[in-house]
Amino acid sequence: MTTEQLREQGRRVRAAASVLATASDQARRGVLEAVANALEARRDDLLAVNALDLARYDDAGAGRDRLLLSDARVASMASALRDVAAAPDPLFEVVDHQVRPNGLDVARVRVPLGVIGVVYENRPNVTSDVAGLCVRSGNAAYLRGSASAQATNEFIVELWREALVAAQLPADAVALVADPSHEAAVAFMQLDDVLDCLIPRGGPSLIAAMREHARVPYVLDGDGNCHVYVDASADLEMALAIVANAKTSRPGVCNAAETVLVHEAIAATFLPALVERIPEVELRGDAATLEFVDATPASDEDFAREFLDLILASKVVSSLDEAIEHVARYGTGHSEAIVTSDQANADAWVRRVDAAAVLVNASTRFIDGGELGLGGEVGISTQKLHARGPMGLRELTCLKWVVRGEGQIR
Amino acid sequence: MTTEQLREQGRRVRAAASVLATASDQARRGVLEAVANALEARRDDLLAVNALDLARYDDAGAGRDRLLLSDARVASMASALRDVAAAPDPLFEVVDHQVRPNGLDVARVRVPLGVIGVVYENRPNVTSDVAGLCVRSGNAAYLRGSASAQATNEFIVELWREALVAAQLPADAVALVADPSHEAAVAFMQLDDVLDCLIPRGGPSLIAAMREHARVPYVLDGDGNCHVYVDASADLEMALAIVANAKTSRPGVCNAAETVLVHEAIAATFLPALVERIPEVELRGDAATLEFVDATPASDEDFAREFLDLILASKVVSSLDEAIEHVARYGTGHSEAIVTSDQANADAWVRRVDAAAVLVNASTRFIDGGELGLGGEVGISTQKLHARGPMGLRELTCLKWVVRGEGQIR
Repeated sequence: MTTEQLREQGRRVRAAASVLATASDQARRGVLEAVANALEARRDDLLAVNALDLARYDDAGAGRDRLLLSDARVASMASALRDVAAAPDPLFEVVDHQVRPNGLDVARVRVPLGVIGVVYENRPNVTSDVAGLCVRSGNAAYLRGSASAQATNEFIVELWREALVAAQLPADAVALVADPSHEAAVAFMQLDDVLDCLIPRGGPSLIAAMREHARVPYVLDGDGNCHVYVDASADLEMALAIVANAKTSRPGVCNAAETVLVHEAIAATFLPALVERIPEVELRGDAATLEFVDATPASDEDFAREFLDLILASKVVSSLDEAIEHVARYGTGHSEAIVTSDQANADAWVRRVDAAAVLVNASTRFIDGGELGLGGEVGISTQKLHARGPMGLRELTCLKWVVRGEGQIR
Repeated sequence: MTTEQLREQGRRVRAAASVLATASDQARRGVLEAVANALEARRDDLLAVNALDLARYDDAGAGRDRLLLSDARVASMASALRDVAAAPDPLFEVVDHQVRPNGLDVARVRVPLGVIGVVYENRPNVTSDVAGLCVRSGNAAYLRGSASAQATNEFIVELWREALVAAQLPADAVALVADPSHEAAVAFMQLDDVLDCLIPRGGPSLIAAMREHARVPYVLDGDGNCHVYVDASADLEMALAIVANAKTSRPGVCNAAETVLVHEAIAATFLPALVERIPEVELRGDAATLEFVDATPASDEDFAREFLDLILASKVVSSLDEAIEHVARYGTGHSEAIVTSDQANADAWVRRVDAAAVLVNASTRFIDGGELGLGGEVGISTQKLHARGPMGLRELTCLKWVVRGEGQIR
């Protein structure tokens, strides 16, 4: 696929976006429902195509599991689409309205962003999930998946295109980059007359490629070096439950905790109890931690790492200030929790910690579009521009100024 | 200045931002008022420094006027700061709030972006205006002005730093890149651990440099190839007044109109009347325009250009659809106006034209932070991510999720 072919496809996607932007709530919702039905009706064909991708896939590790579709996973893709279809329409809401002294009627109205480009890795469910969020919010989805999942992705995208056409909407409102090469991905990130927003869903190397090559506005998704700070005033049983949940309920996701910060006043009680509570977790402790429990010595690097595994760094701090400074230094601005019974400390944490989400007496695992009631998410933004934290339907829109007058001039 | 010196300064600015983010409304407002007073008290010193910059400046053209400060311009800088100081605090507003079924209390609260980087050209008033908007909204302002204005900018920034220190806030909340070279500007755009948002205020070459070099999220400011479409049903006197105002009231700004689109049904009446109304404007017309008036033939390029001068392109269209398609092809997504008496056409324009602002029966010149009641603006965004149209205090903030529980785990 040449860059010119990519630009040509991009122009078609852009044209489709402008049609979709004015489609009715009912039409957009109907497309999601039709694709949910098609996923179920054509499940066996989809699994057969997925088997071809799997047969070509060399790696036996976690990547293979991410690539794999099953009956249950297809059912869950269909069900996710039905949830998003049922979510309230995010479009055409009048966000604010004023009449200026000169009589101008000024409103800001929620409209789609336009064309959303998403670069992602193995999981084929992302193809359907992202298309669903985009189409529901009136945006075209322009997708660049991984080479390993190309056949599966093509099959899923074809279901979308059929449903769009059946609804008399343009097929190109959901499109997949045909060439899964690195060169095509770089050219994709530079389609500045096509993409209104680029969302990378992947690891540090994808983020680095995005910073290096992108020529369009992007939202950075999800580095999550999340902390739980156990304050001197914490309810110890609550703190144990929260740290255990934040670390072990799903260690491979971005809202899992990677470091526990423990106030020195309670370290002697809390740390041994924690080791007893989560024996399956390897603790990597600073020198003070090692005074209370038997753990691997932590390097400075351990505090900066997202383990995404059953490993937890631990540091004993002498104050709330020290905990906040540690988070400012090592955190990635995702989700940061305090466990405390002290209202002033809770408020200081909320005010002073700079992150997409700050939590008091709750697990970091709640920072997720579904848990926060967004009805799905296209990613979790750790940048501050546009959207911060889970990006749902509303975060895929922008505001348009609408000014109505009777001949006013300036 | 080495890149390391720049990064070191950047770290100081970032540290200052985190202090400013929790400063009180009163403290932030007080800094603006103090700088307004200082600008007046030290006006003669400021003008003397500005005279040094002017003496070193070779170009006699428009750049010189933009560089020049005068009594009136300093007074206007002070007055702009007082206006922004008086605007309501944009921070700590609870934008939405819910209690989840599991009892979690979830809010989103407006907080500063952090460090705003601004790259701009000659006008030294931008130094003060931008610092004012940033400090009022709790953000650090990290500024890179033009080499020609360096001494003037340093003087103004010093007034800010003195006022910050007097308010017991860190001086580095307003900082100027000491080295005005192109190399330093490129290094500045790549300070990804310092800048939360980059705003370029300048022409196409600055925008191109930003797309090429920036490694941080940015907001693109203001290409304005704005159109006025005069519908078949337009009140002709209203249309003449709006086109004349949009073109001639200040031709050098981004919200000035660059093309008039005229429905064929009224072209024979409207175009001669327009030429008579604005004889000072050079009309560049398509073939159909030339049938009705004596004008320069327009090239395709003329429809794509932002003249920023007393030149207006003109095209006769056969329908609203053709007008909308022309805007989609040549517009830059800034401000697009229709003059019409037909409600359905007005609504179609509002719905279908994709731009930061769409106007019905009003001049494009109203799309400006002051005119829309934002109390100042840091720029006018023509991208869709984050902010679209004039960026005021609220557009310099982001939302932080605040989750409070009683031990909830997932």
